[in-house]
Amino acid sequence: MATQIFGHKNPDTDAIVSAIVGAEYFQLFGIDAQAVALGQPNDETKFVLDYFGVEMPKVIKKATEDTVILVDHNEAEQSVDNLKDVKISHVIDHHKINFDFSEPIFFHSEVVGSTSTIFYYFMKVFDKELSREAAGLLLSAIISDTLLLKSPTTTQFDRDAVPDLAKLAEIEDYNDYGMQMLKAGTNLDDKTEKQLVDGDAKTFEIKGKKWRIGQVNTVDIDSVLARKDKILKTINKQMDKDGYDNFLFVITDIINSNSQAIFMGEDIEMLSAAFDNQVIDSVIDLPGVVSRKKQIVPPLEKA
Amino acid sequence: MATQIFGHKNPDTDAIVSAIVGAEYFQLFGIDAQAVALGQPNDETKFVLDYFGVEMPKVIKKATEDTVILVDHNEAEQSVDNLKDVKISHVIDHHKINFDFSEPIFFHSEVVGSTSTIFYYFMKVFDKELSREAAGLLLSAIISDTLLLKSPTTTQFDRDAVPDLAKLAEIEDYNDYGMQMLKAGTNLDDKTEKQLVDGDAKTFEIKGKKWRIGQVNTVDIDSVLARKDKILKTINKQMDKDGYDNFLFVITDIINSNSQAIFMGEDIEMLSAAFDNQVIDSVIDLPGVVSRKKQIVPPLEKA
Repeated sequence: MATQIFGHKNPDTDAIVSAIVGAEYFQLFGIDAQAVALGQPNDETKFVLDYFGVEMPKVIKKATEDTVILVDHNEAEQSVDNLKDVKISHVIDHHKINFDFSEPIFFHSEVVGSTSTIFYYFMKVFDKELSREAAGLLLSAIISDTLLLKSPTTTQFDRDAVPDLAKLAEIEDYNDYGMQMLKAGTNLDDKTEKQLVDGDAKTFEIKGKKWRIGQVNTVDIDSVLARKDKILKTINKQMDKDGYDNFLFVITDIINSNSQAIFMGEDIEMLSAAFDNQVIDSVIDLPGVVSRKKQIVPPLEKA
Repeated sequence: MATQIFGHKNPDTDAIVSAIVGAEYFQLFGIDAQAVALGQPNDETKFVLDYFGVEMPKVIKKATEDTVILVDHNEAEQSVDNLKDVKISHVIDHHKINFDFSEPIFFHSEVVGSTSTIFYYFMKVFDKELSREAAGLLLSAIISDTLLLKSPTTTQFDRDAVPDLAKLAEIEDYNDYGMQMLKAGTNLDDKTEKQLVDGDAKTFEIKGKKWRIGQVNTVDIDSVLARKDKILKTINKQMDKDGYDNFLFVITDIINSNSQAIFMGEDIEMLSAAFDNQVIDSVIDLPGVVSRKKQIVPPLEKA
């Protein structure tokens, strides 16, 4: 009986990569783990898979096996639609935990930059030599989640893993590779507004309200803000359709490590309080903010 | 700044021991971890601490430091009363997970017989030689939680740890030591009915209802059942006072690995369905059942 292993909906590079390398890891223990994904790859992930010649896992909406392994997420909202009907055997993650399951399971979460960092160390403990492809995928996911080790979520574990992985992946200059990779994910011009706001969005329940928080990386925030009116219309539609109370669309400048966000919703005062800043014409300035997990969700939860 | 580390309310041997040895473990990483307990030791735990000459940790109701480490539990119901007001930095556990915290943390849970089993392997990975006392405590907690490796919660990890720990603890015959230790916890004659039903009880939320589930170990179930009327009166009082919807008091024969349970509550049909057995005169027979975690809570959640 196979076990499906997958990252969160609207997958980023870490969600896809930790499922692929995670499947390899669990196979070492005799588990017939099969990597799948809960959405299409984004442009950055496509660049990575293409670079290392690795196939994109099959995309599913519902688990089609009885047992699943969750990687890079643990909250039901971000997982398969039928999570309640399957057995969860393992969770490997680095996000905040909001989890409930009726039986004891293997659950491992660490405060590191990416889930791929955890699998790097898991493989090391197992004394398993990584293939060039696996090392390249893990390297890319760490670079993606930490914005080339610049995000405040970056830890010494990530910093130590990157040069070792770069060597195994035969990447001479990981800064150069990383910037190429990040830029591949910032080509936003040929994306529709729906693709922009929903591409990487996640739903969070904060003080009983449903927050939808999306994020895009760019090298030019203004060119995204120029599309604000259409973006707001799209957000409005999404909120009506899916019943979100608030929608925050974060536009992150990966060169200068700053963000601005487009906001629509009922809790504007809570947002202003969280970031000690006003929302002007639906836009809030978020200086120094690059991490949704560490710099956006916790302040909202505390506001 | 110190970090308080503690097991669940109504502590059993594993809850006390995993806090004591856990504190030693986290101190290796420079964390000023201080073991405390959320209740007085039971007779079995007293026997263990006495045998190895280890002091009982201070008993607290509320955390008095800003940061805490939870061991042998993760559910807020089983923890300090002011859990919402403190930062949780780590959780090490082997129970089902029902957990919610606003920031990423280190969380490690495995499907093994005791939390002490996990600390045994953590110390091994760290290449840390255990003192006779620490080894003796871990050994005792594994024996306690697995009823001398006979409970269905027992795994190969527990079986492998026990002989190694017995050697380090200078225990020649761990079966003999274990039986002495378990019997020390079965002297129920001088306990009041309140001490009996509440001594080891935990609260579980199952399908929106509050279940209080207590358990005692004995070598003679009948001598406990002889006190049924007084026990039911005590249960009734507890339910009124704390608003439990159901109370199940499990009496486990540690020699023959069987249980009977005294029940009071509204969900009698759910209980009957869960164990495919009738409740007769407030008592339900639970043949082969010894583990609350594995053989009582999951069937109730599925019923």
